Amino acid sequence: MRILLTNDDGINAKGIHALINELNTIAEIYVVAPDRERSGTGHSITVFDPIKAVETKIPGIKHGWVVGGTPVDCVKLAISRLIDEKIDLVVSGINHGPNLGTDVLYSGTVSAAAEGVIMGAPSISVSLDTYRRESDFSYSARFACRLISSVMEQGLDLTTLLNINIPCLPPAEIKGMRITRLGVRNYDNLFDERHDPRGNTYYWLGGGVLEEEQHQDSDVNAVKQGYISITPVHLDLTDYKLIDKYQRLFDNKLASVLMGPQL
Amino acid sequence: MRILLTNDDGINAKGIHALINELNTIAEIYVVAPDRERSGTGHSITVFDPIKAVETKIPGIKHGWVVGGTPVDCVKLAISRLIDEKIDLVVSGINHGPNLGTDVLYSGTVSAAAEGVIMGAPSISVSLDTYRRESDFSYSARFACRLISSVMEQGLDLTTLLNINIPCLPPAEIKGMRITRLGVRNYDNLFDERHDPRGNTYYWLGGGVLEEEQHQDSDVNAVKQGYISITPVHLDLTDYKLIDKYQRLFDNKLASVLMGPQL
Repeated sequence: MRILLTNDDGINAKGIHALINELNTIAEIYVVAPDRERSGTGHSITVFDPIKAVETKIPGIKHGWVVGGTPVDCVKLAISRLIDEKIDLVVSGINHGPNLGTDVLYSGTVSAAAEGVIMGAPSISVSLDTYRRESDFSYSARFACRLISSVMEQGLDLTTLLNINIPCLPPAEIKGMRITRLGVRNYDNLFDERHDPRGNTYYWLGGGVLEEEQHQDSDVNAVKQGYISITPVHLDLTDYKLIDKYQRLFDNKLASVLMGPQL
Repeated sequence: MRILLTNDDGINAKGIHALINELNTIAEIYVVAPDRERSGTGHSITVFDPIKAVETKIPGIKHGWVVGGTPVDCVKLAISRLIDEKIDLVVSGINHGPNLGTDVLYSGTVSAAAEGVIMGAPSISVSLDTYRRESDFSYSARFACRLISSVMEQGLDLTTLLNINIPCLPPAEIKGMRITRLGVRNYDNLFDERHDPRGNTYYWLGGGVLEEEQHQDSDVNAVKQGYISITPVHLDLTDYKLIDKYQRLFDNKLASVLMGPQL
């Protein structure tokens, strides 16, 4: 099995090296990761600048590159250009911090796995629910490795990534795992306003997570209650429920108004 | 009615000014747009840098800011901080180029409208299906204005944005409008490899759209056939169909292996 590893915390982050140490016992590892932290880059791609890719040696892996681009750039470039062999699985992470609910849209970690799906590879994103600097990723990496062994035996769906969030608890306190849906994540005090020495206004994105009512099966709830959450995430954003509604709304009469005279 | 206008082509792009000229006949217009082109930034937010926002005067609008951030930054900052009044609708565009199928994930234009939905405002993204420099956005802007008047009367769904793509044809040749689903967009020859004067390798993202078999109701098909496509796009990426499958897969037996001894 060949696994492509990437992340959005950059090549030097602890989470990706914890994954290398576990996953190289079950697969050939290719690493293509950003040269620096790229959190919050979502599904961003580099369109207006060249993307540098430098080969790098990492013990225990087959081949590695450090890329001056986003996590999505890394996966696109890796699969379409850098790696000749067929990649059997893309793993993104382990992210330093949770990627839950609506936040998956902003997440470079989850978006890298999404790009894996777009490029035709089964994909998994893994995040650890903590921002503490001295966090230990070894349990998360062991769990991810076991999970990957199991799901690769069973066959992963090709249109859906698995988004995994692991509570930052001593292993004995983790209560189990749950298949979840994406929950709600909203923030308050989003922007901090400041002024530069010339009096110009600028803002820092910040803010704290609001406690929101959640569906009982949400990923947010699961992690809060001490469970590992596994959410199947797909990429077809079409709202099929509303197609009928809008087809009725834009019936011939309204369409003729919209497309009608003097337009 | 108060409309927040943004885009991903930047404050100086023709598309947003075409929208201002039409929409200021039906609403108070607030413009919060990026200081330069930000195509391909997807749902990226600026986490590690301060975001500058400078007030700007534009004839025909209520209030405007130019922002040194992504389209999603613009909408988040506008609604949560810059604008005190309640925004009734977010309009993103008119993009210079289509935003169809899978490409909506990479699109700053569509992501800005998605952020509008996250911030609680009905939202619409509008794109013109051409990359020609001398394109005329006036028909697209008139159509968007009529559409907005109609849907605001009927009430837009709060969890779903409308993604609109307009063929670049003489108005008389546009065949009508269709409610569509997101189609398939894949590219070949994605990266062009080059070498700098010191022999280092870098890549330019490029590539051409592949002709793919499409669902008959896809947005890609509609625009190709000369119809305006309107796709309802939602933001819940949970793959509900697969929740049951994975719940069966991770039954107690497998869960006990995954969570079991020596982990």
